[in-house]
Amino acid sequence: MQKFEGLIAAPFAPFNGAGEIMTEAIPGYCEFLEKNKVVGAFINGSTGEGVSLSMKEKMVVTEAWTAAARHKSIKIINLVGGTSYRESAEAAIHSAEAGVDAIAILAPYYFKPAGAPQLAEFCARIAETVPQLPVYFYHIPVLTGCYVSMYDFLKEASAMIPNLAGIKYTHEDFMDFLSCIHFQEGEYDMMWGRDENMLSALVLGCRSGVGSTFNYAAPLYYALIDAFDKGDLVTARRLQQQSIDMIRLLGKYGGIATGKAYMKYLGFDFGGFRLPVKNMTAGMYDKFKGDVQALQMEHLFSKR
Amino acid sequence: MQKFEGLIAAPFAPFNGAGEIMTEAIPGYCEFLEKNKVVGAFINGSTGEGVSLSMKEKMVVTEAWTAAARHKSIKIINLVGGTSYRESAEAAIHSAEAGVDAIAILAPYYFKPAGAPQLAEFCARIAETVPQLPVYFYHIPVLTGCYVSMYDFLKEASAMIPNLAGIKYTHEDFMDFLSCIHFQEGEYDMMWGRDENMLSALVLGCRSGVGSTFNYAAPLYYALIDAFDKGDLVTARRLQQQSIDMIRLLGKYGGIATGKAYMKYLGFDFGGFRLPVKNMTAGMYDKFKGDVQALQMEHLFSKR
Amino acid sequence: MQKFEGLIAAPFAPFNGAGEIMTEAIPGYCEFLEKNKVVGAFINGSTGEGVSLSMKEKMVVTEAWTAAARHKSIKIINLVGGTSYRESAEAAIHSAEAGVDAIAILAPYYFKPAGAPQLAEFCARIAETVPQLPVYFYHIPVLTGCYVSMYDFLKEASAMIPNLAGIKYTHEDFMDFLSCIHFQEGEYDMMWGRDENMLSALVLGCRSGVGSTFNYAAPLYYALIDAFDKGDLVTARRLQQQSIDMIRLLGKYGGIATGKAYMKYLGFDFGGFRLPVKNMTAGMYDKFKGDVQALQMEHLFSKR
Amino acid sequence: MQKFEGLIAAPFAPFNGAGEIMTEAIPGYCEFLEKNKVVGAFINGSTGEGVSLSMKEKMVVTEAWTAAARHKSIKIINLVGGTSYRESAEAAIHSAEAGVDAIAILAPYYFKPAGAPQLAEFCARIAETVPQLPVYFYHIPVLTGCYVSMYDFLKEASAMIPNLAGIKYTHEDFMDFLSCIHFQEGEYDMMWGRDENMLSALVLGCRSGVGSTFNYAAPLYYALIDAFDKGDLVTARRLQQQSIDMIRLLGKYGGIATGKAYMKYLGFDFGGFRLPVKNMTAGMYDKFKGDVQALQMEHLFSKR
Repeated sequence: MQKFEGLIAAPFAPFNGAGEIMTEAIPGYCEFLEKNKVVGAFINGSTGEGVSLSMKEKMVVTEAWTAAARHKSIKIINLVGGTSYRESAEAAIHSAEAGVDAIAILAPYYFKPAGAPQLAEFCARIAETVPQLPVYFYHIPVLTGCYVSMYDFLKEASAMIPNLAGIKYTHEDFMDFLSCIHFQEGEYDMMWGRDENMLSALVLGCRSGVGSTFNYAAPLYYALIDAFDKGDLVTARRLQQQSIDMIRLLGKYGGIATGKAYMKYLGFDFGGFRLPVKNMTAGMYDKFKGDVQALQMEHLFSKR
Repeated sequence: MQKFEGLIAAPFAPFNGAGEIMTEAIPGYCEFLEKNKVVGAFINGSTGEGVSLSMKEKMVVTEAWTAAARHKSIKIINLVGGTSYRESAEAAIHSAEAGVDAIAILAPYYFKPAGAPQLAEFCARIAETVPQLPVYFYHIPVLTGCYVSMYDFLKEASAMIPNLAGIKYTHEDFMDFLSCIHFQEGEYDMMWGRDENMLSALVLGCRSGVGSTFNYAAPLYYALIDAFDKGDLVTARRLQQQSIDMIRLLGKYGGIATGKAYMKYLGFDFGGFRLPVKNMTAGMYDKFKGDVQALQMEHLFSKR
Repeated sequence: MQKFEGLIAAPFAPFNGAGEIMTEAIPGYCEFLEKNKVVGAFINGSTGEGVSLSMKEKMVVTEAWTAAARHKSIKIINLVGGTSYRESAEAAIHSAEAGVDAIAILAPYYFKPAGAPQLAEFCARIAETVPQLPVYFYHIPVLTGCYVSMYDFLKEASAMIPNLAGIKYTHEDFMDFLSCIHFQEGEYDMMWGRDENMLSALVLGCRSGVGSTFNYAAPLYYALIDAFDKGDLVTARRLQQQSIDMIRLLGKYGGIATGKAYMKYLGFDFGGFRLPVKNMTAGMYDKFKGDVQALQMEHLFSKR
Repeated sequence: MQKFEGLIAAPFAPFNGAGEIMTEAIPGYCEFLEKNKVVGAFINGSTGEGVSLSMKEKMVVTEAWTAAARHKSIKIINLVGGTSYRESAEAAIHSAEAGVDAIAILAPYYFKPAGAPQLAEFCARIAETVPQLPVYFYHIPVLTGCYVSMYDFLKEASAMIPNLAGIKYTHEDFMDFLSCIHFQEGEYDMMWGRDENMLSALVLGCRSGVGSTFNYAAPLYYALIDAFDKGDLVTARRLQQQSIDMIRLLGKYGGIATGKAYMKYLGFDFGGFRLPVKNMTAGMYDKFKGDVQALQMEHLFSKR
């Protein structure tokens, strides 16, 4: 597979009023992403609440997305990671059957790997069950608690996992990130996972990002990339600051669940996040709406 | 259900040479525990590698243990916790069908609960699916990353979860632990989960423990409890020190997997731990064996 | 020096309205402690805000306490620790001249020692400047960030520091604590530093504590020790719970500065804590006072 | 004062064989920095072991540097921060008398500030004693444990500290860093403190860095800045990678003390770091030397 170029959204899990997966929302969601030039969907990830779904629900989500993306330019990457390589392998095999373009694996987050060799071996047990598929590693230590450096991981995994394609890098270690970009002359696809710092990754040679805010503000980031590519850094910095102002509202309104509030603002009602994530109250949503309007960023949000 | 009194072992997952669950080992394992006066088995927990098994494997383990314990004095507590309350509820319902005596729930360990209310609500969603069963909360923040105080948890959960029976407390916060013991005049069954500190919990009024070293050194701890009950603190301290010397070898030989080495020393070959846990090499096992012999604790180990 | 037996208070730094050290308050403070059977004063520690004082102020405090304690049964231990062994050695030499009974050393808290050997060597550089004085190590990793185990420290330091007398242990690692109690057949004086867990330390053989709440609730802890010594554990647990209820108000009202509010409640106005510590407002003090009254613990507070 | 433009070195503390400050080395050190176009010296910082020196030694270092820099283009910034604002104020006043160009203040690292207001007030107490001097805040949470965001700090401190000039930012939070760059239309001088990530800071508009590797590899970073300014990002990335390869040897040989080994490699023998920092052995130094030669970076090192 070629390296990704552009924005990959991490879709939210759409729930109906009863708290059940609302697969019927997925085709429209997929079209919306494509319309806003999003090139991929990283499903069942943190934003997609993969860990809060049952295995069966995750399979339903996977099938709905591959069906929705079938004749579209959007590639589907399915996160199959978990704490049991046995169960992740089952999910990987199902992913292949469902027709995903790639899978992603996470560091196990209960027992933490002692080091890079254990992490690479763990991933290899999953990757080897789908040799025909590209495999991404999803590095997000703030949630997994696994702080193994990705440069050390690549040194182990490059020999062990022939179908390793790259890393979704959601961590602020730019020293490690640049070392991975340069590893084996740029062999691996390094996708940036911190939307609020994208400019600092672009300057290092990164060409793609995977994130939650690309669900609702893809135009902002494409404008940022465009400004960077033209060497107009003043504009690029201003756009990055606008992304930060937007993201700062997540902190103000309680975290990851705020992303679904942004979607609601754009007209998509996907319900709340499942427990243990805390959702904002109706009253808080009204305040949030006022704060979003005050940002004056309508032209940078995704268009329906 | 009455409160537990005595030692509850957290059994290891027995794997055969192919790395598959060896259910045929479980009846003998259960007998061995009973012979050593162990009163319960806390299955699919940390020691039992629940997180490294697939859902199906956990069900197989559950059924094997309830069958093995059927006409025995050993009670079975099954850890159904995970990051998805939906999936944990499925496991809870299966547990009830399989005939467990109680279930246990863990704090979700990917998205961490914002506070006690979110944690209690998360548990309530699972507990309400098996109203006929006692439910224990398994507090082990070093692995889950959820540091909500159990005193705060009880204040929320006592109103929300009628079948809440108590807490397996695997953390060193004795201030919190004593507050839980005294909560609602001793309503909840507080089981201690740090074998190396049992004496410091006994003095607070605790009467039971859940741990991995009770698999192989139950006589040591019963002697410790006996000495404490008789007011012979010098002996109790010496025995606690022997437990510490034994547990210090876990740190020396790489952690949790060392427990299976102790079992092997007693004649039970249960294979290694699954990845990402690191196992000791054959050469290390020989050194370990020498260290165990140097402890001169044969009389305190469990008898086959 | 003999091992301590009983309660050692960690006195607060008394400031006047201008925020200057109020040495004239120290003789009365010392008498008050003695009247309540406190056997020692651990000065310039965390409670005494040693880190917030200038070197000169710490010397003034040291001289005031040794003068006040001259004809009393109270022993003075002065914390000379810091991040520079050079400066700590100067403070140690001054301490000896001022007539303290012992000094204490802290792990350096900016650059953290790589391991036990570095920590022991650092302490040795200070201890060797006052060979005539007993030296205590003050273990409080939550503030210093140095989590070296004290058992490992003793293995290094016992050979390096002939005047090492013991450890003020302010951490919840009872496995490590018991190992230190048993180290070299009880050679070292192990003083417990977590008032809220004292009962769990007494059962391990500990006979003394160093703490901030002994400033205002010495009778409570002597009653607790007495009940424990008599084998009346029900009473001991109840008293420990009362200590916890009292200490829980520290958390509720913002932390360490609440200790001075307790002193004010007893009639000692020592001002606030210096920045960066946050003090409660006057309005909060009124609420605090109500909460203290609701505890109904007057008979367990120290008497003027 | 104008904003800095270029590299500010954080000089090492030069010790002689007896472990005493070797002031006579400072004039030559200063000349060496100037010759390599370094524009400032940030003294008594982490690299300069300020925390390991006594107050008197820090004053000696300050006087030696201001004397050495008198007729040079190098500006002197003196870190006066500590845990006692009283003592830091004394150091600030001495700094002014000694003729420094600016002072810097650190977050207190024993008691951690509860939030931005407490941190700003703490700094204000020091800054107000030298109103004629520019004041920098030195943000290095990995060592201080104070993770207050600098954007929140500026919102408080900008109103409280009229002589606040900017921040030496040694942390990987680029979202926070960019927000500070844009704060009050670029009012504050934001100096980058992670040499290994400089390119990711330059793209955000940063124009200066404070670091330890500028002591020995200033030409590398000036070449990097030059390439970035010309839009030659391929070269800039390659140079950043070379900086990373150089810095990776610090991790390999035990950390901060390795910097003095680089200086020794260039011919400056400044002794080791004081305890508790661990120094490499002579044998390790030989291996280190081989590793440095293998980097083939002689042309990027500073010239004597």
